[in-house]
Amino acid sequence: MKARVTIMLKDGVLDPQGEAIKQALTSLEYNNVNSVRQGKVIDLELNESSEEAAIDSIQEMCEKLLANTVIENYEIKLL
Amino acid sequence: MKARVTIMLKDGVLDPQGEAIKQALTSLEYNNVNSVRQGKVIDLELNESSEEAAIDSIQEMCEKLLANTVIENYEIKLL
Repeated sequence: MKARVTIMLKDGVLDPQGEAIKQALTSLEYNNVNSVRQGKVIDLELNESSEEAAIDSIQEMCEKLLANTVIENYEIKLL
Repeated sequence: MKARVTIMLKDGVLDPQGEAIKQALTSLEYNNVNSVRQGKVIDLELNESSEEAAIDSIQEMCEKLLANTVIENYEIKLL
């Protein structure tokens, strides 16, 4: 089973990487960019036949390792 | 207009970050993980009223700055 985890900084948490991308885009004369936020995406392939078990397992991985839940939100999607 | 760009390494390109995550998961006794690939996600907010113009503009940004198209694929989705 394949799944995609998308991890973004929570609203209000400063995102220097996104800010840097925004500045780079502005210097390339893309002046129509209001805001940029950068996050991570992790594609997992699991040996798991049940969708529920897969989601439970991935949720646990996110809490323990993949995301820093103090400053990040995560979203799990089965593919 | 909001859009999300997802950038992943192409198949066959070595992904040390994904490999490291896989090893970390295995050491946490998640033995059901077959493969892990890590990528980037960039959320953009554009001052652009037409969807087509927004996608064209983002595609150009990807080619010029956001993605390294030699080793990475990108995917644009309007939100």
